[in-house]
Amino acid sequence: MENEFVDYLCSQLPPHPLVRIGPGDDAAVLAAGADEDAVVTTDLLTEGVDFLLDEVDARRIGRKALAVNLSDLASMAARPEAVVVALALPRARGFRLAVELYEGMLPLAEQFGTAIAGGDTNSWDGALVIAVTAIGRLTDRGPLLRSGCQVGDRLLVTGSLGGSIAGHQFDFRPRVNEALQLHADYQLNAGIDISDGLALDVSRLVGASNCGAVLQLDTIPISDAARCLAKSSSDGQSPLDHALGDGEDFELVLAVEPNEARRLMADQPLDVRLTDIGSCVDQSGLWSACPDGRLIPLQPTGYEHQLDE
Amino acid sequence: MENEFVDYLCSQLPPHPLVRIGPGDDAAVLAAGADEDAVVTTDLLTEGVDFLLDEVDARRIGRKALAVNLSDLASMAARPEAVVVALALPRARGFRLAVELYEGMLPLAEQFGTAIAGGDTNSWDGALVIAVTAIGRLTDRGPLLRSGCQVGDRLLVTGSLGGSIAGHQFDFRPRVNEALQLHADYQLNAGIDISDGLALDVSRLVGASNCGAVLQLDTIPISDAARCLAKSSSDGQSPLDHALGDGEDFELVLAVEPNEARRLMADQPLDVRLTDIGSCVDQSGLWSACPDGRLIPLQPTGYEHQLDE
Repeated sequence: MENEFVDYLCSQLPPHPLVRIGPGDDAAVLAAGADEDAVVTTDLLTEGVDFLLDEVDARRIGRKALAVNLSDLASMAARPEAVVVALALPRARGFRLAVELYEGMLPLAEQFGTAIAGGDTNSWDGALVIAVTAIGRLTDRGPLLRSGCQVGDRLLVTGSLGGSIAGHQFDFRPRVNEALQLHADYQLNAGIDISDGLALDVSRLVGASNCGAVLQLDTIPISDAARCLAKSSSDGQSPLDHALGDGEDFELVLAVEPNEARRLMADQPLDVRLTDIGSCVDQSGLWSACPDGRLIPLQPTGYEHQLDE
Repeated sequence: MENEFVDYLCSQLPPHPLVRIGPGDDAAVLAAGADEDAVVTTDLLTEGVDFLLDEVDARRIGRKALAVNLSDLASMAARPEAVVVALALPRARGFRLAVELYEGMLPLAEQFGTAIAGGDTNSWDGALVIAVTAIGRLTDRGPLLRSGCQVGDRLLVTGSLGGSIAGHQFDFRPRVNEALQLHADYQLNAGIDISDGLALDVSRLVGASNCGAVLQLDTIPISDAARCLAKSSSDGQSPLDHALGDGEDFELVLAVEPNEARRLMADQPLDVRLTDIGSCVDQSGLWSACPDGRLIPLQPTGYEHQLDE
């Protein structure tokens, strides 16, 4: 990492009880001592796919790069501890850009008690790439996995969905505290965060659990942004299409045993609304329920990275 | 991560005692339980700066991306435990490329008992970027830091230096076992790995320790590759220039109290040679010693990422 930038970074980073050695050595040293298992996740954002540097303040891009990783920890019900940040910066104004990215990350890191423990800051002839790796710690309730859905479980979702392109994709609040609170106070069977679209991520959730899902389409909470987008665009997509298929909601989908789900829905213990949108079923795949009870296959719409052979 | 690729990856990964949940969920789960502190480091490689995809087999690039991180753990005297891998792949033949990168990483990971615990595999319109984050564990001897040099310490280096461009930059063996063995059996005061050039990295080592270094230029172990490069190139660089300034040797420089250094030099406990190349001095900066004892300033040559304002 470029020396001058390390000096800047060290001057900005608040002390953190877990960080024994922060940026500036060959690696960071984090205090151990916890009995609970660690959780580690990495997410890489690229210019053109995840953001447009010409259109978005770099601080919001930095914030997003950290927030998507925190959202992954949330979906495992892990408490964030530390992150490391690897940057590939375009050569022109790289230093300024790096500062702005960190200016976006620092407040969010502080908000979630997460140390920025280290990084690698590179310049190159390409466009901006940010790879954040987050390390978290499980609670004594263990991890919340994708593979824990039971047939009959209700599927609950936080918040409202769709239209994140209008701004939510940068400004969303990762559901870390919500996941920890629910995992502590209720029996959750499985969970995932919606990064690529409700339909696609629910199909991944139940796929990992070897079951299927039926969504009650009329119950899906649609965001104002999704309604607005459907109105202003001529692509024929309805607000529901947006809620089902738009990526980057970063809300949580949780699988919960029916009685526990009823309790949770009655309690509504979060600042954000929980909605029951369907259930886990024996029949694999993704389905929508007709008023007469028939199941119709539902496309797992959403965003997938295509890798060419 | 693209589903089909995750399936491929899971089929390739051997089980690892630390990995409770590997690739395929939102994050990996690693067993805790160790009392010693954790070490975390990240290194990002970009096409054009760290490798040329047209000229180098992608397996060697993947191997290097992992090896540079293991070298950082070595320089802290940490035992590697797990890595996560974030890729930005060019769209054309991205899947094949990802497979080849992992084919280069897997044998090295196995060799060092390191789990590939997770990753994020993206495609974009840019060139190849690989960001690996490695997590290690300290021994009960604690970390080997840059900041521990004492005035009077001898500076010892493993192996021979320079000319890594001829191949060593891809095929080097990270000095993990060497660092652990020396740290266990001898009193090491400080250490760094040579990633950007001996002169530059020694100046960083002693700079972090608030002292300076005198190098005995006639003792510096010069690699055959450095000699060969000096002979074949017309840029006027001597073999010594290459040994001082070439990056990516990935050898270790260790600061050791004089009596302990004598013991270490006599024992030569490693498969690779240890050479005494100088000492830590009160006067800050980097110096070479003349035959008459005078000190001449030595340029801290090496590779630095330049970040434009």
